[in-house]
Amino acid sequence: MVQYSRKLNDAFGALADPTRRGILERLGRSDAAISELAGSFDMTLTGIKKHVRLLEEAGLVTTEKVGRVRHCRLGPRQLDQETAWIADYRRMLEARLNRLGEFLERSKGTQ
Amino acid sequence: MVQYSRKLNDAFGALADPTRRGILERLGRSDAAISELAGSFDMTLTGIKKHVRLLEEAGLVTTEKVGRVRHCRLGPRQLDQETAWIADYRRMLEARLNRLGEFLERSKGTQ
Repeated sequence: MVQYSRKLNDAFGALADPTRRGILERLGRSDAAISELAGSFDMTLTGIKKHVRLLEEAGLVTTEKVGRVRHCRLGPRQLDQETAWIADYRRMLEARLNRLGEFLERSKGTQ
Repeated sequence: MVQYSRKLNDAFGALADPTRRGILERLGRSDAAISELAGSFDMTLTGIKKHVRLLEEAGLVTTEKVGRVRHCRLGPRQLDQETAWIADYRRMLEARLNRLGEFLERSKGTQ
């Protein structure tokens, strides 16, 4: 449960930043070297490396050093637990709204 | 687009904390006063109010003051954009894995 919670913290935290979401969208088109990402996002190597490290820790990006170049690609995590969590939230919200609707209907009936 | 991005930042950021996810799960069962939430999570009122404010800013919780008590309930946001973003990530990852698989197949054929 703690492990599960940690994964959700890391993944949602990684997705909470527009540059990190941009990096994932960029890697969805093709793998890229860290230096290419820095160029695409007009950031320093140090800045982009911090974002990539957070994405790597969340399992959303895998990096591999070939010679002097560090290559980045999407995955391996498929965000199954995050998808399930958000789907649960949506179901809870719908159920709450339904109950509120029923309550309002009953209240109307008694007026 | 900026507005859209801001919503994703706020919602994913709100979901990146286990206490905040716990508050949403608790509110999924029934509405609750801030003081009840503080009791459930063994936190100070000040601590729980900070979490609730972040959830409110992200549109995941609505609060209403009745007399001296502030009541919290789920919603109104249904996390549509977050669901769509994660679904896009999953499709991108699948497409990347398929292309990698095809590449490996072709490489085998040429050996």
